[in-house]
Amino acid sequence: MLSVKTPEEVLALINEEFEALAETETVSLYSAIGRVLAEDITADEYVPDFDRSTVDGYAVKARDTFGCSDAIPAILSLSGEVLMGESAEFTLERESCCAVPTGGAVPQGADSVVMIEYTEDYGDGTIGIMKSAAPGMNMIFRGDDVFPGKTVLKKGRVLSSQDIGALAAMGRMEVPVAKKLHIGIISTGDELVPPEAKPLPGQIRDVNSPMLQAMLMEFGCEVTNYGIGKDDEALLTAMVEKAFSQCDAVLISGGSSVGIKDATCRIIEKLGTLLLHGIAMKPGKPTLMGKSGKKPIVGLPGHPVAAYFVTKLFVLPLLARLEGRNFKRYSVKARLTESIGANHGRAQYQSVRLEERDGVLYASPIRSKSGLITNLAGAEGWFCIERDCEGLGKDAEIDVFTEQEA
Amino acid sequence: MLSVKTPEEVLALINEEFEALAETETVSLYSAIGRVLAEDITADEYVPDFDRSTVDGYAVKARDTFGCSDAIPAILSLSGEVLMGESAEFTLERESCCAVPTGGAVPQGADSVVMIEYTEDYGDGTIGIMKSAAPGMNMIFRGDDVFPGKTVLKKGRVLSSQDIGALAAMGRMEVPVAKKLHIGIISTGDELVPPEAKPLPGQIRDVNSPMLQAMLMEFGCEVTNYGIGKDDEALLTAMVEKAFSQCDAVLISGGSSVGIKDATCRIIEKLGTLLLHGIAMKPGKPTLMGKSGKKPIVGLPGHPVAAYFVTKLFVLPLLARLEGRNFKRYSVKARLTESIGANHGRAQYQSVRLEERDGVLYASPIRSKSGLITNLAGAEGWFCIERDCEGLGKDAEIDVFTEQEA
Repeated sequence: MLSVKTPEEVLALINEEFEALAETETVSLYSAIGRVLAEDITADEYVPDFDRSTVDGYAVKARDTFGCSDAIPAILSLSGEVLMGESAEFTLERESCCAVPTGGAVPQGADSVVMIEYTEDYGDGTIGIMKSAAPGMNMIFRGDDVFPGKTVLKKGRVLSSQDIGALAAMGRMEVPVAKKLHIGIISTGDELVPPEAKPLPGQIRDVNSPMLQAMLMEFGCEVTNYGIGKDDEALLTAMVEKAFSQCDAVLISGGSSVGIKDATCRIIEKLGTLLLHGIAMKPGKPTLMGKSGKKPIVGLPGHPVAAYFVTKLFVLPLLARLEGRNFKRYSVKARLTESIGANHGRAQYQSVRLEERDGVLYASPIRSKSGLITNLAGAEGWFCIERDCEGLGKDAEIDVFTEQEA
Repeated sequence: MLSVKTPEEVLALINEEFEALAETETVSLYSAIGRVLAEDITADEYVPDFDRSTVDGYAVKARDTFGCSDAIPAILSLSGEVLMGESAEFTLERESCCAVPTGGAVPQGADSVVMIEYTEDYGDGTIGIMKSAAPGMNMIFRGDDVFPGKTVLKKGRVLSSQDIGALAAMGRMEVPVAKKLHIGIISTGDELVPPEAKPLPGQIRDVNSPMLQAMLMEFGCEVTNYGIGKDDEALLTAMVEKAFSQCDAVLISGGSSVGIKDATCRIIEKLGTLLLHGIAMKPGKPTLMGKSGKKPIVGLPGHPVAAYFVTKLFVLPLLARLEGRNFKRYSVKARLTESIGANHGRAQYQSVRLEERDGVLYASPIRSKSGLITNLAGAEGWFCIERDCEGLGKDAEIDVFTEQEA
């Protein structure tokens, strides 16, 4: 018999039992935002590929300007002008200078650029330099940004817009990314009707399918919703087997009835190995996890709030593991607006609303009976009360994980 | 002549000068995740629509159980069983009880449910209750979650997966959302070639178009990339006018040359009103903003890092304003791994890498010459050094805005 595990043990179990599926595909740079990089990106050219000026001014040899000043300018002969987007086709000689625009190429032989503000054009083919230049001043050198062999991005990273910019700078129009995971979801329960239906007395709408689909889509997965499985083990087995054959992972939510819970256990054991039977958390205890080959199959609680937290806390890290995705969550410090109890030996997860007042972020717990999802509509984050904590007082500082992205 | 404004003044200007475009559309619940809600959502029915049990057990009248115990159970006659998904078609009489599953309907007349663990079925049509019930115990009442007239979600909210769950619970299969903004982007500069081209000497690849497109797509916009405008005012004017006629907003990036900068100013003034000429920030100073009717037109710096920060800090809040989107950013506390100077009377924005060690989050500034985007590849967040701050020491606590979502 598998024992109930703590949240930390479940995360360790995920790392131990699952590995990257390692399926990759190539996508256009223009659709790579938010995708998971499947290979390290190493530069194969110099960026920029030429020495550039960072100011409008004159490219010089620094030593030709040493000691000059407003009173005693260095007089250099103007040997040319570099136009924007064109190369500098000559080599700068001693005692001469060359006009360059911001971003323009600096000719060979020059080692610095003097800003136009510190120069004077005498109109006779000579330029007065009023401020001495240090070598390297106001220049970006070939390869300053990137040089061949430099690792610019590490595999597993979720590509940000800055990363897209870096890939563009290197001319990488095709990007190797982890293939989107295809997740199958099944809701179970004789009381469920599809959300578009008007429930009859005793029935309720299936909340978990659309909620999980949304969460998984937001995470970057493709989702197939297999609909609602009734409390009939043969039919449910067929549904799960079909989903499992078509998807990278299957989530079965619900089954508050003992019959469906037991059936889900047996189905997982028939397909592969049951790894987990319960998590010491609130809400969320009745969670099952198993695997067949590299693919996971998860039995989520039927209560939507519990299904939400189990998916957020364990299923997303599990999917990140399958994708080889670097998955990090950062928390925000906030102050509790009211005390909250917890005294049951299980990690307790609590949704909050956030409000900033006078530079302090306040978190108000959203009180909710288990399974009542609409109370959580409008939640802006959540935090955890550790299992050994008996509750937190008003004004306690907590670590909130926010719903909305930066 | 417009003066250079501080970041706070620019945000105030945006709120003052722009308003919601108020174009809405209806999308399926299944594609509403991440969209901006365009109307308050008010319930028009009860959720749940019947009293439900939260446990497997027996529905009772609480007062029939008062004073019972293991030693002296209350003996109630079993008057029926409610099946999952079916209604309770009878009214519970005094001194009787009814078997109900978790999530099942509780019959009229019952006011609480006793968990099966605290009962005994004597097999003769009576049930022993070993623990007295308080009214309301182990039940969710009709409308506990939602009742007609309750505002469940406020307009302007970016819909989260919990919100999708709440909408599903209410059977809202169609969701009114702000129409996606359509943004036109133009890069300018004679030195630019498209990212797919191999730059000739003196040329560099256009980084801003793909980077901005990625950032705007991530934010939920539709983007048309109008390509690269050369330093020719007539051609550039025609490009901007075309983009402006087709889009809700236009971003023109680049123009490090004085010619293009001035041309961008004149084009904005020709189309409408110039509102801003420079932001006191580093990087990012050469930023223009104007409007024509309700539509904005923004001139971004050409340096990718500057364009990145100006877009993140001002363009996204501006677009949120046009959409009527609630836009919040939460920061994470981190400790600087090294000191960083700032002494120029402008707010300075700095990218960082983040690393957690022993429960403390450390932020390492990414040193970069202006405009070098690939150094920022892999950045995990950014923070601001205020204009009146002369720098921050090693181990200073900073507020980091992270790139990656929760």
